[in-house]
Amino acid sequence: MQLVTFSHPFRTGVGILKDDTVIMAAWNLDMLNLIDAGITPNETNIRLPLAECTLLPPLRPRKIIAVGRNYADHAKEMGNEVPEQPLLFSKVTSSLIGQGAAVTWSEAVTQQVDWEGELAVVMGKRTSKVSAEDALKYVYGYSIANDISARDLQQSEPQWVRAKGMDTFCPLGPAIVTKHDVADPQALHLTTQLNGETVQDASTELMIHRVDSLISYISQWVTLEPGDILLTGTPAGVGKGMKPPRFLKDGDVVSVTIDGFGTLTNPCKVTA
Amino acid sequence: MQLVTFSHPFRTGVGILKDDTVIMAAWNLDMLNLIDAGITPNETNIRLPLAECTLLPPLRPRKIIAVGRNYADHAKEMGNEVPEQPLLFSKVTSSLIGQGAAVTWSEAVTQQVDWEGELAVVMGKRTSKVSAEDALKYVYGYSIANDISARDLQQSEPQWVRAKGMDTFCPLGPAIVTKHDVADPQALHLTTQLNGETVQDASTELMIHRVDSLISYISQWVTLEPGDILLTGTPAGVGKGMKPPRFLKDGDVVSVTIDGFGTLTNPCKVTA
Repeated sequence: MQLVTFSHPFRTGVGILKDDTVIMAAWNLDMLNLIDAGITPNETNIRLPLAECTLLPPLRPRKIIAVGRNYADHAKEMGNEVPEQPLLFSKVTSSLIGQGAAVTWSEAVTQQVDWEGELAVVMGKRTSKVSAEDALKYVYGYSIANDISARDLQQSEPQWVRAKGMDTFCPLGPAIVTKHDVADPQALHLTTQLNGETVQDASTELMIHRVDSLISYISQWVTLEPGDILLTGTPAGVGKGMKPPRFLKDGDVVSVTIDGFGTLTNPCKVTA
Repeated sequence: MQLVTFSHPFRTGVGILKDDTVIMAAWNLDMLNLIDAGITPNETNIRLPLAECTLLPPLRPRKIIAVGRNYADHAKEMGNEVPEQPLLFSKVTSSLIGQGAAVTWSEAVTQQVDWEGELAVVMGKRTSKVSAEDALKYVYGYSIANDISARDLQQSEPQWVRAKGMDTFCPLGPAIVTKHDVADPQALHLTTQLNGETVQDASTELMIHRVDSLISYISQWVTLEPGDILLTGTPAGVGKGMKPPRFLKDGDVVSVTIDGFGTLTNPCKVTA
């Protein structure tokens, strides 16, 4: 099941995405409430053409925790060692945008905005100190994220809260794919396209720390709550790793696809 | 007005703290909803002895943004330069605890847990790119925070998400003091006591980046939302700066007082 949060002139809320149709879910509250409740919704009779809907970020979680350098080829292209333990950081939740919304920045603040296509994990049940063996039981579903990063600030500032957390720097969506539709999170094919040109192309089997290990590791020190989002790292092919480096420009369109999940597409807009 | 979130065998919710009494507020939702609504609540007739109430974290915000090295004497005791721009980081909101709850950690994860008494700012209205001159208009109130920090992890890990974000590492409270009761956030007297011994004693006038400047600086790159919490840095007197360094131990009690705000007291407990 693919779940979206949508806005439409006549309706807004949680929907079930099927091909080009958004079916209104039998759920009056928001997606975070739905995940808190631990259920998937039933369909109503209300069907809206996807083209008439705006997809919002699927949910507004309590926290987003991300891992850096989780694919060896990406660590290498950035000139970094692969860390023994996961290199964790967080993104503030106000950075979230949904399908089609613009990634924006001011050139007075950053001139090196880069993409990072990633598999996102949406937690389902509250858990602390879970084993890797049990970890996937606590997952609600998966999604696609773009961990937008200001490389100049990432280099010049000791903590990445600005480089990774600016408004619009966390595109997420288009939908949450519930876990029953994902046989193996380590066997997903992820590609990123910049203006139609493929720049990232990898399988999630290449992750150094697998989803179950990441959840277990993170849950040793922090309680994971329903709706919490984990970003699992990006494979090789970011702009900073190119020779010469290539950064996002006004008017660029960046799309991240995971086979079976759809495509998360966002235009770029430089502001004053 | 001092606002608390309390739990009592017969009632739970938002209360107004007056001396040793919690007056139930005329508000059915939680503190974040109250701040979203942009109001202060009226009193009801229901009065409960403070001693019968458990005070919870005053609110569960959407984000917590903190500043490091914002008092020159503290930067010096840590052997750090004062940064030209505010050194920002974030704490995950699951780290929040309230008055009286235990700060806990496992010695397998960290053996250098330290205190940082701080003035906390609670934002009131949504704002982006606000000037320092207008910034305080967007504040809802103030509180006391203890920015608990695992110094060993802060040193060994590039990003501070674990060192600063573990469960229980953000005591906050006991109350939110609404801004009408705070004539000048730069003229507050803050002390921290460890088992009754004063270890930090300073005025907020010593901040390098003042509250209005911090809000303005942060709002240039991220939208501040109602209830967002800013931690404004700690003055000199943390354990890491002592000779020899002194860290929190099982059974220690750490209290942070801001004159007129009350005292935030938390015991320490080492877990398995």
